[in-house]
Amino acid sequence: MKKQKIDTMKELSVAIGVSRPTLSRYFQDPQSVRRSTAARIQRELEKIEYVPNFFATRMNRKTTGLIGVIIPYLNDLFFTKLLQAIEIAAMDAGFTVIMQCSHFDPDIEARAAQTFMSMSVDGALVVPLGNQSDLKTYERLQERLPFVLVDSRPTTMPNVDFVGSDHWQSTGLITEYLCRVGPPPIFLAMPRVNFNAMEREHAYIECMERLGHEPEVVGTELIEDFWYFEEHGEAVMNAAFARGQYIDRSVLCVNDRVAIGALRAASRHGLVPGRGAKGGLRIAGHDDYPLCPFTAPSLTTVAQNVDAIGKAAVSRLVQKMRGGFAPGQPEIQLFDGALKLRESA
Amino acid sequence: MKKQKIDTMKELSVAIGVSRPTLSRYFQDPQSVRRSTAARIQRELEKIEYVPNFFATRMNRKTTGLIGVIIPYLNDLFFTKLLQAIEIAAMDAGFTVIMQCSHFDPDIEARAAQTFMSMSVDGALVVPLGNQSDLKTYERLQERLPFVLVDSRPTTMPNVDFVGSDHWQSTGLITEYLCRVGPPPIFLAMPRVNFNAMEREHAYIECMERLGHEPEVVGTELIEDFWYFEEHGEAVMNAAFARGQYIDRSVLCVNDRVAIGALRAASRHGLVPGRGAKGGLRIAGHDDYPLCPFTAPSLTTVAQNVDAIGKAAVSRLVQKMRGGFAPGQPEIQLFDGALKLRESA
Repeated sequence: MKKQKIDTMKELSVAIGVSRPTLSRYFQDPQSVRRSTAARIQRELEKIEYVPNFFATRMNRKTTGLIGVIIPYLNDLFFTKLLQAIEIAAMDAGFTVIMQCSHFDPDIEARAAQTFMSMSVDGALVVPLGNQSDLKTYERLQERLPFVLVDSRPTTMPNVDFVGSDHWQSTGLITEYLCRVGPPPIFLAMPRVNFNAMEREHAYIECMERLGHEPEVVGTELIEDFWYFEEHGEAVMNAAFARGQYIDRSVLCVNDRVAIGALRAASRHGLVPGRGAKGGLRIAGHDDYPLCPFTAPSLTTVAQNVDAIGKAAVSRLVQKMRGGFAPGQPEIQLFDGALKLRESA
Repeated sequence: MKKQKIDTMKELSVAIGVSRPTLSRYFQDPQSVRRSTAARIQRELEKIEYVPNFFATRMNRKTTGLIGVIIPYLNDLFFTKLLQAIEIAAMDAGFTVIMQCSHFDPDIEARAAQTFMSMSVDGALVVPLGNQSDLKTYERLQERLPFVLVDSRPTTMPNVDFVGSDHWQSTGLITEYLCRVGPPPIFLAMPRVNFNAMEREHAYIECMERLGHEPEVVGTELIEDFWYFEEHGEAVMNAAFARGQYIDRSVLCVNDRVAIGALRAASRHGLVPGRGAKGGLRIAGHDDYPLCPFTAPSLTTVAQNVDAIGKAAVSRLVQKMRGGFAPGQPEIQLFDGALKLRESA
């Protein structure tokens, strides 16, 4: 038997004999109505075909219950880990996350923001491309919506709330560790298009100078398409190892994906980086990419506190949604990194 | 100076002196109006503050331009690669992808489907959890929306369009290859909760029997939380290698993430799998996970044609959206895998 089909709350109210306000309350929160009423609604709903219209049911309270999230790239487990932390925190706060990827393209990023505004999401969390981002997009977003930047903070957007890692602390921590256990590290960087990468590079230099060592940065030249981090790390270190360079140095990589490439280069040259190796090659990274325990040797790194970042970003966003969003002093929340000692350094 | 704020197409039409139908056409496709008109609209839009309401502008043609995509898990580069292929194909077809993750939870999966229905997405592509999925969710989805299953095909949903890999072909291909170059492989499986995993296991057994070899499946017992594939592969092979077992065999892993764990176990036991090793250990995977070229040794595998799968799924979905979606014979599209020979086997 085909179920009766119902499209509006009004028809639904008639069909199951429960008042509209009670139905509304039920759909916002089933526990806000009497248990017997909830059971009755539940029972009746099973007999009919009804999909509550998201936008219609939310219209009265002027919210959609949606949080839009923009991430720059999909094939990077750091971003997926961050997105997962955001999703879990959003679910706990009663929101549904809608994700769009900007694929490292400022036009797609602008369109994603536009889509979120058109869909009337309650707020947006954006991991921005960086200075390539179209500033106008963000200005409009900020006028229209509560919005918080996550993970990467463009210098061009100083007056926006931000949640991320304290790269001065995290990079300093691992630089000091490497100096303590072996020769002072070189820094395997990447092309300077990413804020976090630049901040880590500067933090490395500052820390080395503070400790009285000569900083040495390699790999800032563009080798292949920029976002293939592993390829970049492998290509730079492969060339160096082939010249017999750095084979007995510590190599601090700007992130773990670059370090995975460097480990691969080491393996091709028969080198086994490790903290046991006295005076020998050591390789370390930054982030605690989920695969670090499974590389050979497993990768020593400094972990970003991704769960705390996701949680704080959602929490700040919800706070802005609830309190309105008068422009004022932006809130900047930075989380410390923690050393993860494994085999490679 | 604060820009004039405008909320409806009607107000916009008055403000910039262009008729509503022309404006509508412009927002659907700027090239569908005369160039001078487009330039004028463009110029005027810059002076005012107007965000076209997604749902309002699309109301007339009864579409939202949105495709909803559900994937089961975020921290897996196979799913992100597939999602990326879908996004690119959808963009080419003029649609915006809205992604939700089901986090391997049937309740979250059901809610994601519900959200898509409420948002009136034009269609949905779903990578399902499998037999754990709530069948009712899919029945309602199918009644309401054009919808295509991707990657994994629950036996409980035989009458839904499906696009994925031909695991009999792909697994047969790599099983035959391993038999050709070394001792017949054992199969490192995983707990049998995933259709693709089961299909590959059956395909391996069938191929081995066809070639006159004794199939041997290991690792079907649940070791840790199921979705930590690398941990699973490492734990199973670590225990075996510690017993001196399989150290001179070929090991075909159910997927590359399990194989990464197996490589790690080999490295811990000082074993270097490779195709050079006569009679020695070989390890191979399935999928062509993006990190395969960077493991040590690099991982031999059979690649799924992810780009073709994403493209075909979007294409089939768009076809259903345009032609209505009368129930009929489901269309099943399976793509062949291709060998990727690297160092590990």
